[in-house]
Amino acid sequence: MVCGLPGIGSVAWLAVNHLQKELRAQLFAEVFSPMFSPKVWLGEDGVVDLMKGEFHFWKNQPGGSDLILFTANEQPYSPEGQYELAEVALDLAYRFGARKVITMGGMATDKLAEPPKVYAGATDVGLVKELEELGAVKLAGGAITGTNGLVFGLARPKKLPAVCLLAETPGYLSLDANAAKTALELFSRMLNVRVDLTALEKQAKENADAVRKAKDLSRAFPREARKGGGDRELHYVS
Amino acid sequence: MVCGLPGIGSVAWLAVNHLQKELRAQLFAEVFSPMFSPKVWLGEDGVVDLMKGEFHFWKNQPGGSDLILFTANEQPYSPEGQYELAEVALDLAYRFGARKVITMGGMATDKLAEPPKVYAGATDVGLVKELEELGAVKLAGGAITGTNGLVFGLARPKKLPAVCLLAETPGYLSLDANAAKTALELFSRMLNVRVDLTALEKQAKENADAVRKAKDLSRAFPREARKGGGDRELHYVS
Amino acid sequence: MVCGLPGIGSVAWLAVNHLQKELRAQLFAEVFSPMFSPKVWLGEDGVVDLMKGEFHFWKNQPGGSDLILFTANEQPYSPEGQYELAEVALDLAYRFGARKVITMGGMATDKLAEPPKVYAGATDVGLVKELEELGAVKLAGGAITGTNGLVFGLARPKKLPAVCLLAETPGYLSLDANAAKTALELFSRMLNVRVDLTALEKQAKENADAVRKAKDLSRAFPREARKGGGDRELHYVS
Amino acid sequence: MVCGLPGIGSVAWLAVNHLQKELRAQLFAEVFSPMFSPKVWLGEDGVVDLMKGEFHFWKNQPGGSDLILFTANEQPYSPEGQYELAEVALDLAYRFGARKVITMGGMATDKLAEPPKVYAGATDVGLVKELEELGAVKLAGGAITGTNGLVFGLARPKKLPAVCLLAETPGYLSLDANAAKTALELFSRMLNVRVDLTALEKQAKENADAVRKAKDLSRAFPREARKGGGDRELHYVS
Repeated sequence: MVCGLPGIGSVAWLAVNHLQKELRAQLFAEVFSPMFSPKVWLGEDGVVDLMKGEFHFWKNQPGGSDLILFTANEQPYSPEGQYELAEVALDLAYRFGARKVITMGGMATDKLAEPPKVYAGATDVGLVKELEELGAVKLAGGAITGTNGLVFGLARPKKLPAVCLLAETPGYLSLDANAAKTALELFSRMLNVRVDLTALEKQAKENADAVRKAKDLSRAFPREARKGGGDRELHYVS
Repeated sequence: MVCGLPGIGSVAWLAVNHLQKELRAQLFAEVFSPMFSPKVWLGEDGVVDLMKGEFHFWKNQPGGSDLILFTANEQPYSPEGQYELAEVALDLAYRFGARKVITMGGMATDKLAEPPKVYAGATDVGLVKELEELGAVKLAGGAITGTNGLVFGLARPKKLPAVCLLAETPGYLSLDANAAKTALELFSRMLNVRVDLTALEKQAKENADAVRKAKDLSRAFPREARKGGGDRELHYVS
Repeated sequence: MVCGLPGIGSVAWLAVNHLQKELRAQLFAEVFSPMFSPKVWLGEDGVVDLMKGEFHFWKNQPGGSDLILFTANEQPYSPEGQYELAEVALDLAYRFGARKVITMGGMATDKLAEPPKVYAGATDVGLVKELEELGAVKLAGGAITGTNGLVFGLARPKKLPAVCLLAETPGYLSLDANAAKTALELFSRMLNVRVDLTALEKQAKENADAVRKAKDLSRAFPREARKGGGDRELHYVS
Repeated sequence: MVCGLPGIGSVAWLAVNHLQKELRAQLFAEVFSPMFSPKVWLGEDGVVDLMKGEFHFWKNQPGGSDLILFTANEQPYSPEGQYELAEVALDLAYRFGARKVITMGGMATDKLAEPPKVYAGATDVGLVKELEELGAVKLAGGAITGTNGLVFGLARPKKLPAVCLLAETPGYLSLDANAAKTALELFSRMLNVRVDLTALEKQAKENADAVRKAKDLSRAFPREARKGGGDRELHYVS
């Protein structure tokens, strides 16, 4: 099961949505409950939709890994709700015989890394080593908050091998396609699943252009005089 | 079932209360629970009443639609409570064989529209089209929060056709009888139920007069000098 | 059942505690649960006690009303907890065959009334009338918040006749013995139970002396010059 | 059962962790649930761990008291969660036949006491007396908040004798090894269990040196001129 809920830079959400579209995975389950916000969305066609989690299924060729893709249009608003949704997802993964859980996310840093590093943790030391060999940097210490982190951590007592891939993201991007792309590249190597990343690359390039323009603009018309400023990076203030 | 809980401009609440009085609908169920605020109300006669939801029934003439009217003296205070109340209402609608759910509400805009537009969304594209033909504007995108929105959205997985009618309201009115009247006019056309709107019209006229006087007063005695002011509309700051 | 939880001026709590001591009512039930604050109290003897509700029983002489006295060392901290405790108390009252529920409280006003008025509401118009004949002022409109209010209001759907007595209290007193005394005088007349109020009277007199001294002091050494000040009452700012 | 959850100065947590390491107690139960924060921790080896409570068991020599050690990597974030965890721990203690519950904690004071006093309360007067004879100061009045306090208080209705030992801690130390050591000395005398305290003593000495240096530094380079300053103690502002 691949888990990607909204979070920093929407990295995980972008990655799992991209997988779903490129692989043409099929929706097979939805979950909605009071753990979500008390609101509904309207589509452009005027049709109402709930806040909810969605599970898509992708049938691989014989011999390869089939995939369950899990995402949602928001994180549950309460801490208890985040535990509840993580349990719902893991129960479903378990019932469908998933053999590995892959969660993703963004790791906020204060600068634009090119290419971004992917930090990785796992439910056992062997998996951590495997991920390092695939190019990830070991997540040595630290906390992961939210549903993505709980799906990862709660897999452990269920004896489901799980990994967490956090791609560097500068924090000021609300949709970091470049980080999502980098996370998916590692994902592809790990599961030996080929995914066309062209759409994400295009979006990443557009983002980079927009950021560059914003920087040029802020240099040409500085909002306030800076002492010795000039070549500084944009910084993220959360 | 027609659902009208307190909200912006009390549009839905005013509309459903008007229906109840004009049609002389009969109270047949009450719901109170810890999802409501921990307080009680006293009537002018010194008799205590709970925070609660109420269901009234109106028997139409043979061939016409009977109505269940659902309202409450407040929205549940917690997000989980709002989901709970929406479920309670829909379960009851389902059990009594309701064939359609109509929720209402106010759509806050920053000026007084005359007549106000009614925006509409639904659980399927056919219903949206039908509402547009009756004079509504399609709600293309956006979120609806609170119990009125949840009754609307949760009807969908229950396969109960549902619509949401949001009448424009300037926001600075706590009881917008004019918006309620406009929503009810559309409602009447949709269900072919005739409702005498005289009382709402009277209240709307009184509101309009009060607003006009307040504007005149604020022009005669401006609180502070304005640059180039004069004919500006009142604006709503929430 | 007589209900007196902590609230404005601790009026209800003082009244029910006074009843318990003067009548030597016997503790027969305690209720503690996560609805209370996550803390414990230590007595002067170093022995620990929980946050909890307590029920005392008083056996009247043949022909008179026996009493269940319900109080607690705090109001439940959450709205749901306040509903829960009110339900627990009413269930117990019901099971023990209570025929009437009497809740008390303080009604914050901005001046020291001598004697304080007692405002009263009830679950039916007949009871309101009866209370007015005993000297109470009808509570015409308004809200009562917290557990005392919920015990009062939730008695209604259980068909338990209930009254609420709110004694005027100036608000700046955290323990208003005079208001508690006045509420108990009405209570005594209503149930025809004689209670020695000497202890409350003594405490009320001490309070009054302390307030008078504080006023004299604040006149002798005004904190800041006042325009035309002099004989003004102390005002309560909540 | 010995209970030591994180709290002021981490006194209880340090004490119980020291016991666990020195006595080489064996982990036999873990508890995790939505009552904890929605996050996970990663170890230095990149392996994920949940927020959770842990129970270790120590088998004493024949004739001596066996010990259950209960700790957690955080206090449950919600009040209801703190009650829930306290109940879980006491149920387990009860099921395993524990005959006494010992909770610890820090008592914030505004100066560094050497040696710190240990304040003690209990579930009955006899136990309080016993603790005073062992050198503790009676906790006469006051409240203890959080899970450590609830484990202590909820033991009472379960008829489990319980004590609470609060060691003085200056408040500005996040890990007060000296206070933990002092609490453990009393604990050792009470249960007649010998524990090597060398590691805590070493840590306490390092803390004391660090504090002394910080004071010297703040005297040498005072942040702002003080009226008549000089030999004042550091004070804790929470």
